[in-house]
Amino acid sequence: MTSSPASKRQKHSSASPSPPYELLYWPTIPGRGEHIRLCFEETQTPYTDTCNADPQTGPQTLRSLISGANDGDATNPPPLAPPALRHGDLLLSQTPNILLYLGPKLGLAGPGGGDGDAVYHVNQLALTALDGLSDEAHDTHHPVATGAYYEDQKEEAKRKAADYISNRLPKFLGYFERVLRGEASGGGEWLYGGQLTYADLVLWQCVDGVSFAFPVAVKQMREGGKYGRVFGLYERVKGRENIAAYLKSGRRQKYSMGIYRHYPELDAEEV
Amino acid sequence: MTSSPASKRQKHSSASPSPPYELLYWPTIPGRGEHIRLCFEETQTPYTDTCNADPQTGPQTLRSLISGANDGDATNPPPLAPPALRHGDLLLSQTPNILLYLGPKLGLAGPGGGDGDAVYHVNQLALTALDGLSDEAHDTHHPVATGAYYEDQKEEAKRKAADYISNRLPKFLGYFERVLRGEASGGGEWLYGGQLTYADLVLWQCVDGVSFAFPVAVKQMREGGKYGRVFGLYERVKGRENIAAYLKSGRRQKYSMGIYRHYPELDAEEV
Repeated sequence: MTSSPASKRQKHSSASPSPPYELLYWPTIPGRGEHIRLCFEETQTPYTDTCNADPQTGPQTLRSLISGANDGDATNPPPLAPPALRHGDLLLSQTPNILLYLGPKLGLAGPGGGDGDAVYHVNQLALTALDGLSDEAHDTHHPVATGAYYEDQKEEAKRKAADYISNRLPKFLGYFERVLRGEASGGGEWLYGGQLTYADLVLWQCVDGVSFAFPVAVKQMREGGKYGRVFGLYERVKGRENIAAYLKSGRRQKYSMGIYRHYPELDAEEV
Repeated sequence: MTSSPASKRQKHSSASPSPPYELLYWPTIPGRGEHIRLCFEETQTPYTDTCNADPQTGPQTLRSLISGANDGDATNPPPLAPPALRHGDLLLSQTPNILLYLGPKLGLAGPGGGDGDAVYHVNQLALTALDGLSDEAHDTHHPVATGAYYEDQKEEAKRKAADYISNRLPKFLGYFERVLRGEASGGGEWLYGGQLTYADLVLWQCVDGVSFAFPVAVKQMREGGKYGRVFGLYERVKGRENIAAYLKSGRRQKYSMGIYRHYPELDAEEV
Protein backbone atom coordinates (compact mmCIF):
# COMPACT_ATOMS: atom_id res chain seq x y z
CA MET A 1 0.00 0.00 0.00
CA THR A 2 1.17 3.51 -0.63
CA SER A 3 1.26 6.31 1.86
CA SER A 4 -0.88 8.69 -0.15
CA PRO A 5 -3.52 10.77 1.62
CA ALA A 6 -6.70 9.21 2.86
CA SER A 7 -9.23 7.55 0.62
CA LYS A 8 -12.87 8.41 0.18
CA ARG A 9 -13.73 5.75 2.80
CA GLN A 10 -12.75 8.22 5.49
CA LYS A 11 -16.21 9.72 5.44
CA HIS A 12 -16.28 10.26 9.20
CA SER A 13 -13.28 12.57 9.33
CA SER A 14 -13.38 16.31 8.92
CA ALA A 15 -13.64 18.04 5.55
CA SER A 16 -9.90 18.67 5.21
CA PRO A 17 -7.99 15.71 3.81
CA SER A 18 -6.67 13.29 6.40
CA PRO A 19 -2.88 13.09 6.66
CA PRO A 20 -1.38 9.68 5.78
CA TYR A 21 -1.46 6.86 8.29
CA GLU A 22 1.81 5.26 9.38
CA LEU A 23 1.92 2.00 11.33
CA LEU A 24 5.04 1.35 13.36
CA TYR A 25 5.37 -2.29 14.34
CA TRP A 26 7.99 -5.05 14.23
CA PRO A 27 8.46 -6.49 10.74
CA THR A 28 7.90 -10.08 9.51
CA ILE A 29 5.23 -11.11 12.08
CA PRO A 30 1.51 -10.30 12.25
CA GLY A 31 1.69 -9.53 16.00
CA ARG A 32 -0.38 -6.82 17.61
CA GLY A 33 0.14 -4.65 14.55
CA GLU A 34 -2.10 -7.00 12.59
CA HIS A 35 -5.21 -5.60 14.26
CA ILE A 36 -4.37 -2.20 12.83
CA ARG A 37 -3.48 -3.57 9.40
CA LEU A 38 -6.80 -5.40 9.12
CA CYS A 39 -8.74 -2.17 9.70
CA PHE A 40 -6.81 -0.44 6.92
CA GLU A 41 -7.08 -3.41 4.58
CA GLU A 42 -10.81 -3.99 5.09
CA THR A 43 -11.57 -0.33 4.41
CA GLN A 44 -8.96 0.04 1.64
CA THR A 45 -7.37 2.89 3.53
CA PRO A 46 -3.83 3.72 2.39
CA TYR A 47 -1.17 3.31 5.06
CA THR A 48 2.55 2.85 5.40
CA ASP A 49 3.77 -0.21 7.29
CA THR A 50 7.15 1.32 8.02
CA CYS A 51 9.12 -1.70 9.20
CA ASN A 52 7.89 -4.07 6.50
CA ALA A 53 8.29 -1.33 3.86
CA ASP A 54 11.97 -0.97 4.71
CA PRO A 55 13.40 -3.70 6.95
CA GLN A 56 16.66 -1.73 7.20
CA THR A 57 15.63 1.73 8.34
CA GLY A 58 12.11 0.94 9.58
CA PRO A 59 13.10 -0.98 12.71
CA GLN A 60 15.67 1.73 13.53
CA THR A 61 12.90 4.31 13.47
CA LEU A 62 10.77 2.11 15.71
CA ARG A 63 13.62 1.40 18.13
CA SER A 64 14.40 5.07 18.62
CA LEU A 65 10.73 5.71 19.25
CA ILE A 66 10.51 3.17 22.09
CA SER A 67 14.00 3.89 23.39
CA GLY A 68 14.45 4.81 27.04
CA ALA A 69 15.94 8.08 25.78
CA ASN A 70 12.67 9.18 24.18
CA ASP A 71 10.51 11.38 26.39
CA GLY A 72 7.99 12.09 23.62
CA ASP A 73 7.36 15.53 22.18
CA ALA A 74 5.26 18.61 22.91
CA THR A 75 1.90 16.87 22.61
CA ASN A 76 2.65 13.12 22.47
CA PRO A 77 3.88 11.02 25.39
CA PRO A 78 6.41 8.38 24.32
CA PRO A 79 5.12 4.92 23.40
CA LEU A 80 6.22 2.11 25.71
CA ALA A 81 5.97 -0.55 23.03
CA PRO A 82 4.67 -1.06 19.50
CA PRO A 83 2.30 -0.86 17.74
CA ALA A 84 2.30 2.89 17.34
CA LEU A 85 0.32 4.94 14.86
CA ARG A 86 1.40 8.24 13.40
CA HIS A 87 -1.32 10.39 11.89
CA GLY A 88 -0.23 13.94 11.16
CA ASP A 89 1.16 15.36 14.41
CA LEU A 90 -0.47 12.67 16.49
CA LEU A 91 1.44 9.64 17.74
CA LEU A 92 -0.57 6.98 19.59
CA SER A 93 0.31 3.63 21.06
CA GLN A 94 -1.56 0.72 22.71
CA THR A 95 -3.44 -1.52 20.27
CA PRO A 96 -6.97 -0.95 21.62
CA ASN A 97 -6.29 2.79 21.78
CA ILE A 98 -5.20 2.96 18.14
CA LEU A 99 -8.28 0.94 17.14
CA LEU A 100 -10.48 3.29 19.14
CA TYR A 101 -9.00 6.24 17.29
CA LEU A 102 -9.30 4.65 13.86
CA GLY A 103 -12.72 3.04 14.36
CA PRO A 104 -14.88 6.15 13.82
CA LYS A 105 -12.60 7.47 11.06
CA LEU A 106 -12.77 4.23 9.07
CA GLY A 107 -16.45 3.49 9.66
CA LEU A 108 -15.70 0.52 11.92
CA ALA A 109 -17.07 1.83 15.22
CA GLY A 110 -20.63 0.57 14.91
CA PRO A 111 -23.96 2.35 14.50
CA GLY A 112 -23.60 6.10 14.91
CA GLY A 113 -20.04 6.10 13.57
CA GLY A 114 -18.49 6.88 16.93
CA ASP A 115 -20.91 9.67 17.86
CA GLY A 116 -23.09 7.65 20.23
CA ASP A 117 -22.33 5.00 22.81
CA ALA A 118 -21.83 2.13 20.32
CA VAL A 119 -18.10 2.77 20.22
CA TYR A 120 -17.87 1.91 23.93
CA HIS A 121 -19.49 -1.46 23.27
CA VAL A 122 -17.12 -2.07 20.37
CA ASN A 123 -14.15 -1.04 22.53
CA GLN A 124 -15.34 -3.37 25.32
CA LEU A 125 -15.54 -6.32 22.93
CA ALA A 126 -12.14 -5.59 21.40
CA LEU A 127 -10.52 -5.26 24.84
CA THR A 128 -12.03 -8.56 25.94
CA ALA A 129 -10.83 -10.41 22.84
CA LEU A 130 -7.32 -8.95 23.24
CA ASP A 131 -7.22 -9.92 26.93
CA GLY A 132 -8.25 -13.52 26.55
CA LEU A 133 -7.26 -14.51 23.04
CA SER A 134 -4.09 -12.48 22.53
CA ASP A 135 -2.42 -11.55 25.85
CA GLU A 136 -3.32 -14.80 27.58
CA ALA A 137 -2.42 -16.83 24.50
CA HIS A 138 1.00 -15.16 24.55
CA ASP A 139 1.45 -15.96 28.21
CA THR A 140 1.03 -19.70 27.57
CA HIS A 141 4.54 -19.80 26.10
CA HIS A 142 5.98 -17.18 28.44
CA PRO A 143 4.23 -17.69 31.78
CA VAL A 144 7.17 -16.75 33.99
CA ALA A 145 9.23 -14.10 32.23
CA THR A 146 8.52 -12.29 28.97
CA GLY A 147 12.20 -11.54 28.57
CA ALA A 148 13.46 -15.12 29.07
CA TYR A 149 13.59 -18.01 26.60
CA TYR A 150 10.69 -20.38 26.15
CA GLU A 151 13.07 -23.27 26.79
CA ASP A 152 13.72 -21.89 30.28
CA GLN A 153 10.04 -21.94 31.20
CA LYS A 154 8.85 -24.92 29.21
CA GLU A 155 7.49 -26.91 32.15
CA GLU A 156 5.53 -23.91 33.42
CA ALA A 157 4.34 -23.28 29.87
CA LYS A 158 2.92 -26.80 29.68
CA ARG A 159 0.86 -26.23 32.82
CA LYS A 160 -0.24 -22.80 31.65
CA ALA A 161 -1.22 -24.01 28.18
CA ALA A 162 -3.19 -26.95 29.62
CA ASP A 163 -5.14 -24.51 31.78
CA TYR A 164 -5.60 -22.18 28.84
CA ILE A 165 -7.04 -24.93 26.65
CA SER A 166 -9.23 -26.40 29.38
CA ASN A 167 -10.52 -23.26 31.02
CA ARG A 168 -9.62 -19.94 29.51
CA LEU A 169 -10.13 -20.56 25.79
CA PRO A 170 -13.62 -22.08 26.30
CA LYS A 171 -14.46 -19.19 28.62
CA PHE A 172 -13.64 -16.57 26.02
CA LEU A 173 -15.08 -18.43 23.04
CA GLY A 174 -18.22 -19.04 25.10
CA TYR A 175 -18.42 -15.37 25.92
CA PHE A 176 -18.32 -14.32 22.28
CA GLU A 177 -20.84 -17.02 21.42
CA ARG A 178 -23.19 -15.39 23.95
CA VAL A 179 -22.47 -11.95 22.53
CA LEU A 180 -23.42 -13.19 19.06
CA ARG A 181 -26.54 -14.92 20.43
CA GLY A 182 -27.54 -11.71 22.21
CA GLU A 183 -29.93 -9.15 20.82
CA ALA A 184 -27.35 -6.34 20.87
CA SER A 185 -25.40 -8.15 18.13
CA GLY A 186 -28.23 -7.19 15.80
CA GLY A 187 -28.79 -10.62 14.31
CA GLY A 188 -25.71 -12.65 15.21
CA GLU A 189 -23.65 -12.05 12.09
CA TRP A 190 -21.44 -9.46 13.73
CA LEU A 191 -20.61 -8.76 17.38
CA TYR A 192 -22.38 -5.44 17.68
CA GLY A 193 -25.21 -3.55 16.05
CA GLY A 194 -25.70 -5.67 12.94
CA GLN A 195 -22.63 -4.35 11.13
CA LEU A 196 -18.94 -5.13 10.81
CA THR A 197 -16.85 -3.27 13.41
CA TYR A 198 -13.22 -3.39 14.38
CA ALA A 199 -14.18 -5.75 17.21
CA ASP A 200 -15.07 -8.37 14.58
CA LEU A 201 -11.68 -7.91 12.92
CA VAL A 202 -9.95 -8.21 16.29
CA LEU A 203 -11.87 -11.39 17.14
CA TRP A 204 -11.06 -12.82 13.71
CA GLN A 205 -7.33 -12.21 14.11
CA CYS A 206 -7.39 -13.62 17.65
CA VAL A 207 -9.20 -16.81 16.60
CA ASP A 208 -6.86 -17.14 13.63
CA GLY A 209 -3.82 -16.76 15.87
CA VAL A 210 -5.08 -19.18 18.50
CA SER A 211 -5.86 -21.67 15.70
CA PHE A 212 -2.23 -21.42 14.56
CA ALA A 213 -0.92 -21.89 18.10
CA PHE A 214 -3.25 -24.70 19.15
CA PRO A 215 -4.54 -26.35 15.95
CA VAL A 216 -5.63 -29.58 17.61
CA ALA A 217 -7.43 -27.91 20.49
CA VAL A 218 -9.22 -25.42 18.25
CA LYS A 219 -10.21 -28.17 15.78
CA GLN A 220 -11.75 -30.13 18.64
CA MET A 221 -13.63 -27.06 19.89
CA ARG A 222 -14.82 -26.27 16.42
CA GLU A 223 -16.05 -29.80 15.79
CA GLY A 224 -17.64 -29.84 19.25
CA GLY A 225 -20.20 -27.41 17.86
CA LYS A 226 -20.54 -25.19 20.92
CA TYR A 227 -19.09 -22.12 19.26
CA GLY A 228 -20.83 -22.20 15.89
CA ARG A 229 -21.53 -18.49 15.86
CA VAL A 230 -17.91 -17.57 16.61
CA PHE A 231 -16.56 -19.80 13.85
CA GLY A 232 -19.31 -18.55 11.56
CA LEU A 233 -18.09 -15.00 12.12
CA TYR A 234 -14.53 -16.20 11.57
CA GLU A 235 -15.41 -17.57 8.12
CA ARG A 236 -17.49 -14.50 7.30
CA VAL A 237 -14.58 -12.13 7.96
CA LYS A 238 -12.13 -14.37 6.12
CA GLY A 239 -14.41 -14.37 3.09
CA ARG A 240 -14.78 -10.63 2.79
CA GLU A 241 -13.41 -9.41 -0.50
CA ASN A 242 -10.74 -7.05 0.84
CA ILE A 243 -9.70 -9.36 3.65
CA ALA A 244 -9.46 -12.38 1.35
CA ALA A 245 -7.32 -10.38 -1.09
CA TYR A 246 -5.11 -9.18 1.75
CA LEU A 247 -4.60 -12.67 3.16
CA LYS A 248 -3.37 -13.84 -0.23
CA SER A 249 -1.05 -10.84 -0.62
CA GLY A 250 2.57 -10.48 0.43
CA ARG A 251 1.50 -7.89 2.97
CA ARG A 252 0.08 -10.59 5.25
CA GLN A 253 2.95 -11.83 7.40
CA LYS A 254 3.33 -15.46 8.47
CA TYR A 255 3.05 -16.51 12.10
CA SER A 256 6.37 -17.49 13.62
CA MET A 257 7.86 -16.41 16.93
CA GLY A 258 5.45 -13.66 17.92
CA ILE A 259 2.40 -13.65 20.16
CA TYR A 260 1.10 -16.85 18.60
CA ARG A 261 3.60 -19.69 18.51
CA HIS A 262 3.01 -23.29 17.63
CA TYR A 263 4.72 -25.64 20.06
CA PRO A 264 3.12 -29.08 19.57
CA GLU A 265 3.86 -30.00 23.18
CA LEU A 266 1.59 -27.18 24.37
CA ASP A 267 -1.37 -28.18 22.18
CA ALA A 268 -4.15 -30.63 23.07
CA GLU A 269 -3.66 -34.29 22.16
CA GLU A 270 -5.41 -35.83 19.17
CA VAL A 271 -8.23 -38.13 20.28
CA MET B 1 -22.45 8.18 48.72
CA THR B 2 -26.04 8.33 47.60
CA SER B 3 -27.34 7.46 44.17
CA SER B 4 -29.00 10.80 43.53
CA PRO B 5 -28.71 12.35 40.08
CA ALA B 6 -25.47 13.80 38.91
CA SER B 7 -23.75 16.69 40.59
CA LYS B 8 -22.81 20.01 39.09
CA ARG B 9 -19.34 18.61 38.30
CA GLN B 10 -20.81 16.83 35.30
CA LYS B 11 -20.33 19.90 33.23
CA HIS B 12 -19.36 17.98 30.13
CA SER B 13 -22.60 16.04 29.82
CA SER B 14 -25.68 17.21 27.97
CA ALA B 15 -28.17 19.69 29.41
CA SER B 16 -30.56 17.02 30.69
CA PRO B 17 -29.64 15.64 34.12
CA SER B 18 -27.40 12.59 34.04
CA PRO B 19 -28.95 9.38 35.35
CA PRO B 20 -27.30 7.94 38.47
CA TYR B 21 -24.07 5.98 38.17
CA GLU B 22 -23.99 2.41 39.47
CA LEU B 23 -20.73 0.51 39.91
CA LEU B 24 -20.96 -3.26 39.94
CA TYR B 25 -17.87 -4.89 41.40
CA TRP B 26 -17.00 -7.51 44.02
CA PRO B 27 -17.36 -6.22 47.58
CA THR B 28 -14.67 -5.86 50.30
CA ILE B 29 -11.62 -5.44 48.00
CA PRO B 30 -10.42 -2.40 46.05
CA GLY B 31 -9.75 -4.48 42.91
CA ARG B 32 -10.31 -3.16 39.45
CA GLY B 33 -13.41 -1.36 40.66
CA GLU B 34 -11.18 1.02 42.60
CA HIS B 35 -10.17 2.85 39.43
CA ILE B 36 -13.82 3.74 38.88
CA ARG B 37 -14.42 4.67 42.51
CA LEU B 38 -11.46 7.05 42.52
CA CYS B 39 -12.89 8.99 39.57
CA PHE B 40 -16.20 9.41 41.33
CA GLU B 41 -14.57 10.30 44.65
CA GLU B 42 -12.13 12.84 43.22
CA THR B 43 -14.92 14.64 41.37
CA GLN B 44 -17.50 14.21 44.16
CA THR B 45 -19.84 12.50 41.73
CA PRO B 46 -22.63 10.53 43.43
CA TYR B 47 -22.59 6.81 42.67
CA THR B 48 -23.90 3.57 44.06
CA ASP B 49 -21.36 0.85 44.84
CA THR B 50 -23.94 -1.92 44.68
CA CYS B 51 -22.06 -4.82 46.24
CA ASN B 52 -20.59 -2.84 49.12
CA ALA B 53 -23.91 -1.06 49.66
CA ASP B 54 -25.67 -4.38 50.20
CA PRO B 55 -23.36 -7.39 50.60
CA GLN B 56 -26.42 -9.69 50.51
CA THR B 57 -28.26 -8.75 47.33
CA GLY B 58 -25.46 -6.82 45.56
CA PRO B 59 -23.26 -9.81 44.71
CA GLN B 60 -26.34 -11.72 43.53
CA THR B 61 -27.08 -8.92 41.09
CA LEU B 62 -23.47 -8.99 39.89
CA ARG B 63 -23.39 -12.78 39.57
CA SER B 64 -26.51 -12.87 37.42
CA LEU B 65 -25.00 -10.15 35.21
CA ILE B 66 -21.83 -12.14 34.50
CA SER B 67 -23.60 -15.50 34.41
CA GLY B 68 -23.21 -17.73 31.37
CA ALA B 69 -26.97 -17.49 31.00
CA ASN B 70 -26.87 -13.73 30.36
CA ASP B 71 -26.77 -12.78 26.69
CA GLY B 72 -27.14 -9.06 27.40
CA ASP B 73 -30.11 -6.99 26.28
CA ALA B 74 -31.28 -5.08 23.20
CA THR B 75 -28.38 -2.61 23.19
CA ASN B 76 -25.81 -3.93 25.67
CA PRO B 77 -23.65 -7.02 25.17
CA PRO B 78 -23.16 -9.01 28.38
CA PRO B 79 -20.13 -8.21 30.55
CA LEU B 80 -17.57 -11.02 30.84
CA ALA B 81 -16.33 -9.89 34.23
CA PRO B 82 -16.63 -6.98 36.65
CA PRO B 83 -16.28 -4.07 36.97
CA ALA B 84 -19.42 -3.00 35.14
CA LEU B 85 -21.00 0.43 35.07
CA ARG B 86 -24.68 1.11 34.68
CA HIS B 87 -25.63 4.61 33.56
CA GLY B 88 -29.24 4.91 32.49
CA ASP B 89 -29.87 2.29 29.82
CA LEU B 90 -26.17 1.83 29.20
CA LEU B 91 -24.21 -1.06 30.70
CA LEU B 92 -20.45 -1.10 30.10
CA SER B 93 -17.65 -3.36 31.23
CA GLN B 94 -13.84 -3.45 30.96
CA THR B 95 -12.05 -1.06 33.35
CA PRO B 96 -10.30 1.12 30.72
CA ASN B 97 -13.54 1.30 28.74
CA ILE B 98 -15.54 2.52 31.73
CA LEU B 99 -12.83 5.09 32.47
CA LEU B 100 -12.90 6.24 28.86
CA TYR B 101 -16.64 6.74 29.10
CA LEU B 102 -16.49 8.57 32.42
CA GLY B 103 -13.40 10.67 31.71
CA PRO B 104 -15.02 13.36 29.54
CA LYS B 105 -18.18 13.41 31.68
CA LEU B 106 -16.25 13.95 34.90
CA GLY B 107 -13.68 16.40 33.55
CA LEU B 108 -10.84 13.85 33.84
CA ALA B 109 -10.01 13.36 30.15
CA GLY B 110 -7.39 16.11 29.82
CA PRO B 111 -7.36 19.37 27.88
CA GLY B 112 -10.38 19.66 25.58
CA GLY B 113 -12.57 17.60 27.86
CA GLY B 114 -12.72 14.63 25.52
CA ASP B 115 -13.42 16.64 22.36
CA GLY B 116 -9.89 16.61 20.96
CA ASP B 117 -7.19 13.95 20.81
CA ALA B 118 -6.08 14.32 24.46
CA VAL B 119 -8.42 11.56 25.55
CA TYR B 120 -6.47 9.08 23.38
CA HIS B 121 -3.27 10.01 25.19
CA VAL B 122 -4.98 9.63 28.53
CA ASN B 123 -6.44 6.27 27.45
CA GLN B 124 -2.99 5.14 26.27
CA LEU B 125 -1.42 5.99 29.63
CA ALA B 126 -4.20 4.33 31.61
CA LEU B 127 -3.99 1.16 29.48
CA THR B 128 -0.22 1.01 29.98
CA ALA B 129 -0.48 1.40 33.76
CA LEU B 130 -3.18 -1.28 33.92
CA ASP B 131 -1.09 -3.65 31.79
CA GLY B 132 2.12 -3.43 33.72
CA LEU B 133 1.14 -2.44 37.24
CA SER B 134 -2.18 -4.23 37.64
CA ASP B 135 -2.51 -7.21 35.28
CA GLU B 136 1.15 -8.21 35.50
CA ALA B 137 1.19 -7.63 39.26
CA HIS B 138 -1.77 -10.00 39.54
CA ASP B 139 0.00 -12.60 37.45
CA THR B 140 2.94 -12.73 39.89
CA HIS B 141 0.79 -14.73 42.32
CA HIS B 142 -1.13 -16.62 39.64
CA PRO B 143 1.37 -17.22 36.83
CA VAL B 144 0.00 -20.61 35.75
CA ALA B 145 -3.74 -20.66 36.31
CA THR B 146 -6.04 -17.86 37.43
CA GLY B 147 -8.57 -20.38 38.67
CA ALA B 148 -6.14 -22.45 40.77
CA TYR B 149 -4.81 -21.81 44.29
CA TYR B 150 -1.69 -19.76 44.89
CA GLU B 151 -0.29 -22.65 46.92
CA ASP B 152 -0.43 -24.84 43.82
CA GLN B 153 1.72 -22.45 41.79
CA LYS B 154 3.92 -21.03 44.52
CA GLU B 155 7.25 -22.02 42.98
CA GLU B 156 6.27 -20.54 39.62
CA ALA B 157 5.05 -17.44 41.45
CA LYS B 158 8.45 -16.98 43.06
CA ARG B 159 10.15 -16.99 39.65
CA LYS B 160 7.52 -14.71 38.17
CA ALA B 161 7.68 -12.24 41.07
CA ALA B 162 11.48 -12.13 40.93
CA ASP B 163 11.30 -11.26 37.24
CA TYR B 164 8.58 -8.73 37.91
CA ILE B 165 10.64 -6.95 40.56
CA SER B 166 13.88 -7.07 38.57
CA ASN B 167 12.62 -6.27 35.10
CA ARG B 168 8.97 -5.41 34.66
CA LEU B 169 8.36 -3.04 37.58
CA PRO B 170 11.43 -0.89 36.78
CA LYS B 171 10.40 -0.90 33.11
CA PHE B 172 6.94 0.48 33.85
CA LEU B 173 8.02 2.92 36.58
CA GLY B 174 10.78 4.10 34.26
CA TYR B 175 8.26 4.61 31.49
CA PHE B 176 6.02 6.81 33.61
CA GLU B 177 9.08 8.71 34.86
CA ARG B 178 9.85 9.50 31.20
CA VAL B 179 6.24 10.50 30.55
CA LEU B 180 6.41 12.94 33.47
CA ARG B 181 9.79 14.25 32.30
CA GLY B 182 8.38 14.77 28.81
CA GLU B 183 6.98 18.02 27.49
CA ALA B 184 3.53 16.56 26.82
CA SER B 185 2.99 16.15 30.56
CA GLY B 186 2.76 19.93 30.72
CA GLY B 187 5.20 20.47 33.56
CA GLY B 188 5.66 17.05 35.16
CA GLU B 189 3.05 17.30 37.88
CA TRP B 190 0.53 15.19 36.01
CA LEU B 191 0.91 12.63 33.25
CA TYR B 192 -0.76 14.59 30.49
CA GLY B 193 -1.51 18.18 29.59
CA GLY B 194 -0.74 19.87 32.89
CA GLN B 195 -3.92 18.73 34.60
CA LEU B 196 -5.19 15.82 36.64
CA THR B 197 -6.72 13.09 34.45
CA TYR B 198 -8.02 9.63 35.14
CA ALA B 199 -4.64 8.27 34.03
CA ASP B 200 -3.10 9.90 37.14
CA LEU B 201 -5.71 8.25 39.34
CA VAL B 202 -5.06 4.88 37.66
CA LEU B 203 -1.30 5.25 38.13
CA TRP B 204 -1.81 6.21 41.77
CA GLN B 205 -3.95 3.16 42.48
CA CYS B 206 -1.49 0.90 40.66
CA VAL B 207 1.52 2.23 42.57
CA ASP B 208 -0.43 1.98 45.82
CA GLY B 209 -1.38 -1.62 45.08
CA VAL B 210 2.11 -2.64 44.04
CA SER B 211 3.45 -0.98 47.22
CA PHE B 212 1.09 -3.17 49.25
CA ALA B 213 2.12 -6.32 47.40
CA PHE B 214 5.89 -5.67 47.34
CA PRO B 215 6.62 -3.20 50.17
CA VAL B 216 10.33 -3.97 50.36
CA ALA B 217 10.93 -3.81 46.64
CA VAL B 218 8.99 -0.57 46.22
CA LYS B 219 10.72 1.02 49.22
CA GLN B 220 14.08 0.19 47.66
CA MET B 221 13.02 1.65 44.32
CA ARG B 222 11.68 4.73 45.98
CA GLU B 223 14.84 5.30 47.98
CA GLY B 224 16.93 4.59 44.89
CA GLY B 225 15.72 7.94 43.60
CA LYS B 226 15.24 6.97 39.95
CA TYR B 227 11.49 7.42 39.97
CA GLY B 228 11.15 10.69 41.86
CA ARG B 229 8.52 12.10 39.52
CA VAL B 230 6.33 9.00 39.79
CA PHE B 231 6.42 8.97 43.58
CA GLY B 232 5.91 12.74 43.57
CA LEU B 233 2.71 12.23 41.57
CA TYR B 234 1.75 9.46 43.97
CA GLU B 235 1.99 11.81 46.97
CA ARG B 236 0.25 14.60 45.06
CA VAL B 237 -2.79 12.43 44.30
CA LYS B 238 -2.89 11.04 47.83
CA GLY B 239 -2.90 14.56 49.25
CA ARG B 240 -5.79 15.84 47.20
CA GLU B 241 -8.64 16.88 49.45
CA ASN B 242 -11.30 14.52 48.10
CA ILE B 243 -8.94 11.58 47.70
CA ALA B 244 -7.50 12.03 51.21
CA ALA B 245 -11.02 12.17 52.68
CA TYR B 246 -12.00 9.07 50.72
CA LEU B 247 -8.95 7.08 51.84
CA LYS B 248 -9.88 7.78 55.47
CA SER B 249 -13.51 6.81 54.90
CA GLY B 250 -15.16 3.42 55.26
CA ARG B 251 -15.75 3.40 51.51
CA ARG B 252 -12.08 2.65 50.84
CA GLN B 253 -11.68 -1.13 51.02
CA LYS B 254 -8.58 -2.83 52.42
CA TYR B 255 -6.27 -4.90 50.23
CA SER B 256 -6.53 -8.61 50.90
CA MET B 257 -6.89 -11.42 48.38
CA GLY B 258 -7.56 -9.46 45.22
CA ILE B 259 -5.27 -8.31 42.44
CA TYR B 260 -2.68 -7.10 44.91
CA ARG B 261 -1.64 -9.68 47.51
CA HIS B 262 1.18 -9.48 49.98
CA TYR B 263 3.12 -12.73 50.15
CA PRO B 264 6.45 -11.92 51.87
CA GLU B 265 8.15 -14.77 50.00
CA LEU B 266 7.43 -13.01 46.69
CA ASP B 267 8.85 -9.63 47.78
CA ALA B 268 12.45 -8.47 47.47
CA GLU B 269 14.80 -9.15 50.39
CA GLU B 270 15.75 -6.40 52.81
CA VAL B 271 19.33 -5.29 52.28
